[in-house]
Amino acid sequence: MSSSKDRLIYLPLGGAGEIGMNAYVYGYGAPGKEKLILVDLGVTFPNMDTTPGVDLIFADISWLEERRDRLEAIFITHAHEDHVGAVGHLWSRLRAPVYARPFTANHAARKMEEQGQDPSNVKVVEPWPNKVKAGPFEVAFLPVSHSIPESSAMVIDTPAGRVVHTGDFKLDPTPLVGEPFDRGLWAEVAKPGVKVLTCDSTNVFSPNPGRSEATLGPAIRQLVERAPQMVVATTFASNIARVKTLAEAGVDAGRSVCLMGRAMRRMVEAGVESGVLTDFPRTVTPEQAADLPRGNLMLIVTGSQGERRAASGQLSRGKYMGLELKEGDLFLFSSKTIPGNERDVLRVVNALSEMGVDVVDDSADLYHVSGHANRPDLATIHMLMKPGVVVPMHGEHRHLREHVKLAAENGLPAMLAPNGTMLDLTGDQPRVAEFVETGRTYLDGRVQIGALDGVVRDRIRMALNGHVTVSLILDEDDEPMGDPWVDLSGLPETAPGGVSLVEAVEEKLGTFLNRAEDKVLTDDDLLEKDLKIIARRTVENEIGKRPEVTVVISRLA
Amino acid sequence: MSSSKDRLIYLPLGGAGEIGMNAYVYGYGAPGKEKLILVDLGVTFPNMDTTPGVDLIFADISWLEERRDRLEAIFITHAHEDHVGAVGHLWSRLRAPVYARPFTANHAARKMEEQGQDPSNVKVVEPWPNKVKAGPFEVAFLPVSHSIPESSAMVIDTPAGRVVHTGDFKLDPTPLVGEPFDRGLWAEVAKPGVKVLTCDSTNVFSPNPGRSEATLGPAIRQLVERAPQMVVATTFASNIARVKTLAEAGVDAGRSVCLMGRAMRRMVEAGVESGVLTDFPRTVTPEQAADLPRGNLMLIVTGSQGERRAASGQLSRGKYMGLELKEGDLFLFSSKTIPGNERDVLRVVNALSEMGVDVVDDSADLYHVSGHANRPDLATIHMLMKPGVVVPMHGEHRHLREHVKLAAENGLPAMLAPNGTMLDLTGDQPRVAEFVETGRTYLDGRVQIGALDGVVRDRIRMALNGHVTVSLILDEDDEPMGDPWVDLSGLPETAPGGVSLVEAVEEKLGTFLNRAEDKVLTDDDLLEKDLKIIARRTVENEIGKRPEVTVVISRLA
Repeated sequence: MSSSKDRLIYLPLGGAGEIGMNAYVYGYGAPGKEKLILVDLGVTFPNMDTTPGVDLIFADISWLEERRDRLEAIFITHAHEDHVGAVGHLWSRLRAPVYARPFTANHAARKMEEQGQDPSNVKVVEPWPNKVKAGPFEVAFLPVSHSIPESSAMVIDTPAGRVVHTGDFKLDPTPLVGEPFDRGLWAEVAKPGVKVLTCDSTNVFSPNPGRSEATLGPAIRQLVERAPQMVVATTFASNIARVKTLAEAGVDAGRSVCLMGRAMRRMVEAGVESGVLTDFPRTVTPEQAADLPRGNLMLIVTGSQGERRAASGQLSRGKYMGLELKEGDLFLFSSKTIPGNERDVLRVVNALSEMGVDVVDDSADLYHVSGHANRPDLATIHMLMKPGVVVPMHGEHRHLREHVKLAAENGLPAMLAPNGTMLDLTGDQPRVAEFVETGRTYLDGRVQIGALDGVVRDRIRMALNGHVTVSLILDEDDEPMGDPWVDLSGLPETAPGGVSLVEAVEEKLGTFLNRAEDKVLTDDDLLEKDLKIIARRTVENEIGKRPEVTVVISRLA
Repeated sequence: MSSSKDRLIYLPLGGAGEIGMNAYVYGYGAPGKEKLILVDLGVTFPNMDTTPGVDLIFADISWLEERRDRLEAIFITHAHEDHVGAVGHLWSRLRAPVYARPFTANHAARKMEEQGQDPSNVKVVEPWPNKVKAGPFEVAFLPVSHSIPESSAMVIDTPAGRVVHTGDFKLDPTPLVGEPFDRGLWAEVAKPGVKVLTCDSTNVFSPNPGRSEATLGPAIRQLVERAPQMVVATTFASNIARVKTLAEAGVDAGRSVCLMGRAMRRMVEAGVESGVLTDFPRTVTPEQAADLPRGNLMLIVTGSQGERRAASGQLSRGKYMGLELKEGDLFLFSSKTIPGNERDVLRVVNALSEMGVDVVDDSADLYHVSGHANRPDLATIHMLMKPGVVVPMHGEHRHLREHVKLAAENGLPAMLAPNGTMLDLTGDQPRVAEFVETGRTYLDGRVQIGALDGVVRDRIRMALNGHVTVSLILDEDDEPMGDPWVDLSGLPETAPGGVSLVEAVEEKLGTFLNRAEDKVLTDDDLLEKDLKIIARRTVENEIGKRPEVTVVISRLA
């Protein structure tokens, strides 16, 4: 089946250049005719600086869509949004079966349903040693610990050798929920030889070995026990082990536990449904909680990143579902703030401070552990798998580059392959085969738009500079009917000196029109361009800003 | 002169609720007739999340402006922007003399000039024991260490007793540039008894004693010495001591030093002009630097916060002033990232990573120290000054609240007084006298606008939701002339299913107008409201976004 011309390729479409929107293509076959598989299909989240108004961000999958007749399967390593979040939105453009373990499949199927796709395209798979055949590939889900249950590395057997794609992972012997890292199992996988280790890079700058999820219990229990009034704790909703630790700490302290926030309840439900979560303490509803003494209550809530609409944000602004924080209550962030979310988190913290609530966060390293392998843990995996080459994935450019250095420290070859870099991994010397154009697709409302379409750029410009609408009517003889009208959005009404900005612009436009030649007045494009320049320049002269301008010319034909 | 009815008041207008825009009023006299002084008049910086397009943010000084006939003087503790930055912009609304020490006065005078104000209103003052008389106050500048030269606490003597307003400070015995913290001097000030200690709160959550500026030299020297190629270092331009340490490390390693970025050069000039900076190494110009071997070069550049236009940002995008970074160069962030600036800083770091530049930051705590007193240092000052009351200032609400707790731990009374809280500090029991409406003023281009004016709110809405312009002409009989026209800004052109969004909205508006009654067609307000609702609803139905809508109705009267 395999010929001497066949090759093994790797192409990250997302995730190798950011933390988020993971999407990695592997291919095997004759150049340009490789059969393909995709590992993960995640989202990344927008921000006001660069993507205002955008709902979600996906990797641009055009390259893969154009070759979907060769796409054999999609594999999802785990149920985090940056790995599974785009499945529902993008599946119709790929139409290959989606394989995942039960807990992950539960989420993937729901995402398919939400976007009107048939959830039966999601296939539930048993882990290693079970294998899924997909064209020339045989793929197994190798259990590994992370901050969500059933995370798995992909063991991808190809005619050119074995690839181990770690997915997100940490080396946790006691993750509390989900499988521990099993060194023996990984050694077994490594035994026949690993050609390529495609490896998580997010924590390559963390110098100390990672800590186990199980180390947090005592500190959290002590904190909750000693709290005099109501306790509210937030964490990533998908970290079911943490939610369980928090809930158990509450119950141990004689408190009733109430889960708040849709994502929080859904994750716990999915955990129970898929069988990964057992012995979760009984909870009460917010209605029941409202009737209990405050000192006997513990809320576990969404919103660890300061999201305005999450339960934490709602509670920081007042009563929410009948419950309210008060002076002397304790609020625990059992989480870290993802870079970029600092302002949002601090907004919540300061609002809680104004209520007299005592906020505890992870600055003392007591109440949170990361779900990713730190630098020494990555080195451990390198040495355990002894791959022919390390290909760092899932990280910003700085992480990938540092991970290459780390591999070199351990004497392993490594290839830096940011999004769009197609590697040929067939021979002993991996090499760059090609650079593929990649990018981002924005979900904007219900529309998918390209990152370079200009839509978001225009929004950013309006946000920075304001917007002016200029309306002009021309009669049948191409003569302006009265002066042009000016409307402002997002601009001050009055310029320094007390001049009305609208009047100042209208006056300048009027003067221009009085003198304008027929050549201009009869040409919509020319007229629009001139009116735009004058409006912008006048605003700039008056107040020092250069606004966006929309010109509407109406002709009475 | 002082009567039994006279009172001593304190009113923060800015800085007690944020890190930034410091502005603290003290008053003494009969209630409502107090003579006033202002300590600091700073800015805070806008961000895309909440203040897109805004240039600078000031405290709303309306309260003080209305009472400016009673304002005796403005004192500036030091030359950081969040203490001196608004002097030029707001002085014309206050018109009181501005007192500062030479280095600070150099900056304040320049700011006055830049805004067309007479710089001779800035008076240069000698430090303690020299005193400035201002109405019932006698005010002295008490030298203290910080991250900029000539920082000073204000010793404010009033008929009701002595107030010590720390300004920003740290307890540094060896700050390298500017005066060290002099415990004996502070003890001398404390000796007659301190009624009120108004105290910096920014680092109250930092548990360990602060480190001296002088501790950084060896690590920085070693790093620069070992770098094989060009070295670029960035820090806060105003931290002249750090700039000097960096420059000396360069010279010691046999490198020519080049300062890049206007703020960097200006700060060093101001340091030399005002006499605080001596023995600064010789520097070369960028032109000269471009001709030198790269391995013999060290650039010290602006942009430690990832500012796009600063030298670091420019260099991260390519050639700047003839200089360019290359594989193997070293870039040092001798700074910390201010919360909220993470994304900007990481953008620069990743761009440098793509160039193959090795980036070193302060994550190992080797290359930066804070300019503020940490928790144990604050406790030291509390105990040294033994004030009647501690009033925490300069910090977010969470900092102020924690600082009150810290004072309590040391057995000192403390008052939580966020912006707008007027304290009466006259008697033995300080109390809240009044709540004053405070807020923020935005400098937007050249216009000062109120934070609640709606201008910025409209910009945020356009950024999140896009903007639609609807234009309609009605003839002399109030009949629509043709269909309304629709223009989109910041919205996708095509809805799912391939429908043109403009056409979809125009069609709905046309249908509405065909059926509209005269009552509506003759009433601009009613018509505008209906068109707005229909345009918004149609866009929402088509693409799931609710845009801002501007309706322009033109009538041929």
